[in-house]
Amino acid sequence: MLKISEDILLEGAAMHKWATDLFPICRSITGQGVRDTLGYIKNLLPMMTIEEVPSGTQAFDWVVPDEWNIYDAYIADESGQRIVDFKKNNLHVVGYSEPIDQWMTLEELDNNLYSLPDQPTAIPYVTSYYSRRWGFCLSHEQTHTIKPGSYHVVINSELKPGFLNYAELRLPGKSKEEVFLSTYICHPSMANDQLSGPVVATALAKWLSSQERLRYSYRIVFIPETIGSIVYISRNLTELKQRVIAGFNISCVGDERCYSYLPSRAGNTVSDQAAQHVLKYIDKDYIKYTWLDRASDECQYCSPGVDLPMASIMRSKYGVYPEYHTSLDDLNFVTPVGLAGSLLALKTSIEIIENNYTFKTTSPCEPQLGKRGLYPTLSTKSSSDQMRAIMSLISYCDGSKSLLEIADIIDQPFWKVQGWVNKLREHDLLQLV
Amino acid sequence: MLKISEDILLEGAAMHKWATDLFPICRSITGQGVRDTLGYIKNLLPMMTIEEVPSGTQAFDWVVPDEWNIYDAYIADESGQRIVDFKKNNLHVVGYSEPIDQWMTLEELDNNLYSLPDQPTAIPYVTSYYSRRWGFCLSHEQTHTIKPGSYHVVINSELKPGFLNYAELRLPGKSKEEVFLSTYICHPSMANDQLSGPVVATALAKWLSSQERLRYSYRIVFIPETIGSIVYISRNLTELKQRVIAGFNISCVGDERCYSYLPSRAGNTVSDQAAQHVLKYIDKDYIKYTWLDRASDECQYCSPGVDLPMASIMRSKYGVYPEYHTSLDDLNFVTPVGLAGSLLALKTSIEIIENNYTFKTTSPCEPQLGKRGLYPTLSTKSSSDQMRAIMSLISYCDGSKSLLEIADIIDQPFWKVQGWVNKLREHDLLQLV
Amino acid sequence: MLKISEDILLEGAAMHKWATDLFPICRSITGQGVRDTLGYIKNLLPMMTIEEVPSGTQAFDWVVPDEWNIYDAYIADESGQRIVDFKKNNLHVVGYSEPIDQWMTLEELDNNLYSLPDQPTAIPYVTSYYSRRWGFCLSHEQTHTIKPGSYHVVINSELKPGFLNYAELRLPGKSKEEVFLSTYICHPSMANDQLSGPVVATALAKWLSSQERLRYSYRIVFIPETIGSIVYISRNLTELKQRVIAGFNISCVGDERCYSYLPSRAGNTVSDQAAQHVLKYIDKDYIKYTWLDRASDECQYCSPGVDLPMASIMRSKYGVYPEYHTSLDDLNFVTPVGLAGSLLALKTSIEIIENNYTFKTTSPCEPQLGKRGLYPTLSTKSSSDQMRAIMSLISYCDGSKSLLEIADIIDQPFWKVQGWVNKLREHDLLQLV
Repeated sequence: MLKISEDILLEGAAMHKWATDLFPICRSITGQGVRDTLGYIKNLLPMMTIEEVPSGTQAFDWVVPDEWNIYDAYIADESGQRIVDFKKNNLHVVGYSEPIDQWMTLEELDNNLYSLPDQPTAIPYVTSYYSRRWGFCLSHEQTHTIKPGSYHVVINSELKPGFLNYAELRLPGKSKEEVFLSTYICHPSMANDQLSGPVVATALAKWLSSQERLRYSYRIVFIPETIGSIVYISRNLTELKQRVIAGFNISCVGDERCYSYLPSRAGNTVSDQAAQHVLKYIDKDYIKYTWLDRASDECQYCSPGVDLPMASIMRSKYGVYPEYHTSLDDLNFVTPVGLAGSLLALKTSIEIIENNYTFKTTSPCEPQLGKRGLYPTLSTKSSSDQMRAIMSLISYCDGSKSLLEIADIIDQPFWKVQGWVNKLREHDLLQLV
Repeated sequence: MLKISEDILLEGAAMHKWATDLFPICRSITGQGVRDTLGYIKNLLPMMTIEEVPSGTQAFDWVVPDEWNIYDAYIADESGQRIVDFKKNNLHVVGYSEPIDQWMTLEELDNNLYSLPDQPTAIPYVTSYYSRRWGFCLSHEQTHTIKPGSYHVVINSELKPGFLNYAELRLPGKSKEEVFLSTYICHPSMANDQLSGPVVATALAKWLSSQERLRYSYRIVFIPETIGSIVYISRNLTELKQRVIAGFNISCVGDERCYSYLPSRAGNTVSDQAAQHVLKYIDKDYIKYTWLDRASDECQYCSPGVDLPMASIMRSKYGVYPEYHTSLDDLNFVTPVGLAGSLLALKTSIEIIENNYTFKTTSPCEPQLGKRGLYPTLSTKSSSDQMRAIMSLISYCDGSKSLLEIADIIDQPFWKVQGWVNKLREHDLLQLV
Repeated sequence: MLKISEDILLEGAAMHKWATDLFPICRSITGQGVRDTLGYIKNLLPMMTIEEVPSGTQAFDWVVPDEWNIYDAYIADESGQRIVDFKKNNLHVVGYSEPIDQWMTLEELDNNLYSLPDQPTAIPYVTSYYSRRWGFCLSHEQTHTIKPGSYHVVINSELKPGFLNYAELRLPGKSKEEVFLSTYICHPSMANDQLSGPVVATALAKWLSSQERLRYSYRIVFIPETIGSIVYISRNLTELKQRVIAGFNISCVGDERCYSYLPSRAGNTVSDQAAQHVLKYIDKDYIKYTWLDRASDECQYCSPGVDLPMASIMRSKYGVYPEYHTSLDDLNFVTPVGLAGSLLALKTSIEIIENNYTFKTTSPCEPQLGKRGLYPTLSTKSSSDQMRAIMSLISYCDGSKSLLEIADIIDQPFWKVQGWVNKLREHDLLQLV
């Protein structure tokens, strides 16, 4: 089994600290919250560039909407007391709410209040990006405490042409072929379905930046979900299709409840193979979703005409865990250990992809390992499982299967197989295909 | 689930009426009974043509046999009383019996009597088309009542050069590609394994004839089983192979006991896909047979060198239900509801084949359905199963899969998928491949 | 089910007799024991040639080692009594032991003694072909009886340039394509994992030699394991790759405990198909191993760059049965019935390969079998399973599937299918593809 090391756990603590710093920011698909979030991450990844795309820009079937900014919002009673206050929790306002400043009765107000009868203590997360509305979200418990009367409803927001922002980090490797990592930065104060993705992507980017040598080039993007990936694809489609040989959408990677895997649309890319291989050794009971369960940016990356090999490794998947898209998805649910486990899984997947070569043996028949000290010279009744596995590895190195495919066939972890390959190559027993 | 509608049930009643009219006729692979049966059907389908093929005509490995006609047959005792009488039930005479008029002892007679010890009340159905014989069939119970003595054995039949008859209805569609329906009209008074096939085929033909627009052309034949399909193929092989893209052999479609599916030899044609898709929604417990269980004209249509895509949707399959090939297979066993269910299954299969196009999306990434009123503009925690299914449909429209294949992948009925496709096409979001 | 006939059982007795004669010889990968063994077999197969390959010859990654001969070996106590004596059991000496003649204490001796704590009555089989050592093997029980003291340790062996020997029998058939049988002759006195292989291969060779007509040519080799197959391949690689269309490695074919199958690396060759087909009818509970379980010469024959279609039919597989590589693997464990069962399985597999043609029907549609006496002319309610199977056979003769593949699809033994094919060919209903 693959265990979280001391070092990775320290990174888990660092990631949780970043998430804590970023938690209060009111993000949306555009606006100052996105820029503040990207600015914080750029401090950690100075090579990253922040891009801006003007409102009204066409991206395939979509148009970049007006920029939304919000400064304050509340519902106050006749005594002036704020009974719902955006400053206490930015989930209280429906995302992209248009401005309002008006007195109204509870009856009038009620149509614009959102709560969850099944989760009475949770403030739900609601948005209306492409249709002008305003609204407040609050716990179902609180709705019972609001008495009939007159209320002052204020949303001090702005909706006007501006920019959609995203950030991109490009790390050149030996090959122009790329591994693509994508995460989103458009949800307000939520932890698993928001901050876990960017902080794990940041830790991966820092690790990759520190590597002396990379086989593949890397492209790491921090974008608003859906509109951001569509805009990004529309600007980079040809290059993405030519270069990207593997990739992961990074979302919901912060809790400790389980591990999950969601395939690419194609289902059998090297990203899919690596993710499943790693999860088998981290938690053999990991949950396997299907393409029908998808709902994040892989919808765009794997769509017909784009067809990138993007798989997802997650902890508790969006849409499935009860805290999803509510105020309960917080920094208690997301933990350093949860983040560390995801980092381990993604890092190991990337290491596998970096080292996943195809070999063939240098001569027919088995090599004589004994004379090279790689096999016991005394032949007794029992043979070790490891020696058998090495011989099986060699027997499958016929130039038709990658090391990862062989590792799965011989049921051995990739990192062991890779170690054996290194020894065999020292003795010129395998050649690259 | 797909249910039998009021309209289809009315058609069930009409079909049962036709079967009742046709029941008394003594059919065989040739002779006046076949012509009478085809004449009755031609009243319902005036565009149908009736063909005749002379005895002695070669058809691949076979030769059209002499025509058989029978006028009377009985076994009378010494007092002149008919103890077995063809006029009471035409199953009493072995099909294609040669004429006889002779007195003999019970011992002599006995070799030419057929009954079923395991089904003592049933008169069995026995034929000897290609080897001259005569014989009588009777219930096993009755055999015990015949006392030793002398009997007058009379079969007033004729075996002489004549014709093999079959009927063909051709309905032109937009494409020269064809859907082929075949049923047989060569068994005497039996219901499920005889009349259910022609009456359901007739109802389908009437429905198809009434369509304003057909994508495919249709070819519907009423033939004697085996020799008829072989003769038909021998006269139409090139055209059949060029044109037929789907087809069904229609047999045993009248009782209510179960639904059955028997694949084409290839096993994965669009006929097979459609039949299985429809049956899944009519009766998820339908029986799946294999090609090894076949025994009707699909043997010829799918044989090597012919290779047509002919599948079978049945109720109780020939050879399996106890009443099969006995006098118990009657119009109580076959019911209006049983016939209606088969009509529904075959009609729906044909509708699917007519509408089974392949599409691809008109631009990369997901389309923005919200702005077209096809998706909610307010994004809350829950998303409807239907919206998820529509997005999955779009994600599989990559030009490589037919709508029917996508319907199976996303586990949705074809007719729902087709409705969604129609809406998406109104907005130019899908294009035909 | 396929049963061992009287004749095959007699062959089982003959094979057991040969094994009994060969048992005492001290074989190794080189030396006089190999030549004595091959000499005995040549008496049974006079057409066989015995080859010699000088020590020092390079074979891919390997070098033929010096020849080893041994004349005597013992451990004697101070009174001169032999407490371990090679003359009593040649397993007592580690294979390829270098000579020694020396007095030493039990402490000094102990490092060179091998026994099995888990099998206290068994003398283990140990070798050290490529690293110079000496040693004695004895039962763990016996180790407890050796008292501290001084011992005279004598191994009268020779290690010097000589030859590696193997034998080859080539039987020409109508085609230059070959079936390849390989067995090894390099282990000392053991029965299942040694003599069962050569005696079954000898019986197969005698049977093949006696055939008037062979479709394929046959190549049968008796070699030392591993180094022998590597040497043989190095001398014959091009021819083997061009000609061998099927083959079996023959090892561990002598006991009665079970039947086993081990696939070729490719896994789906005609050898694999035939072996599995035959075993299904001999013992439906036969054990299916995978390529990962291999450990004999198939490692070389199926290695990348060699890629021969070699499967294995075994009784108790090497490495799995407790007696393996010990003195308990003797001629009580291996029996005439055990050997006979393996002969039956291999003989039948070869017969299948010889008769595994591909046919297509001579005309479209089903042939009329009735007029040829191959089908009943009276059609009654029931049809025999055999008639149904014959019609299914015909329906699959479309030129794309071999008879063996069809036999598996229609779930009938090959030998029955072959009989039906013969009848159908008499009537020109099938043609060779």
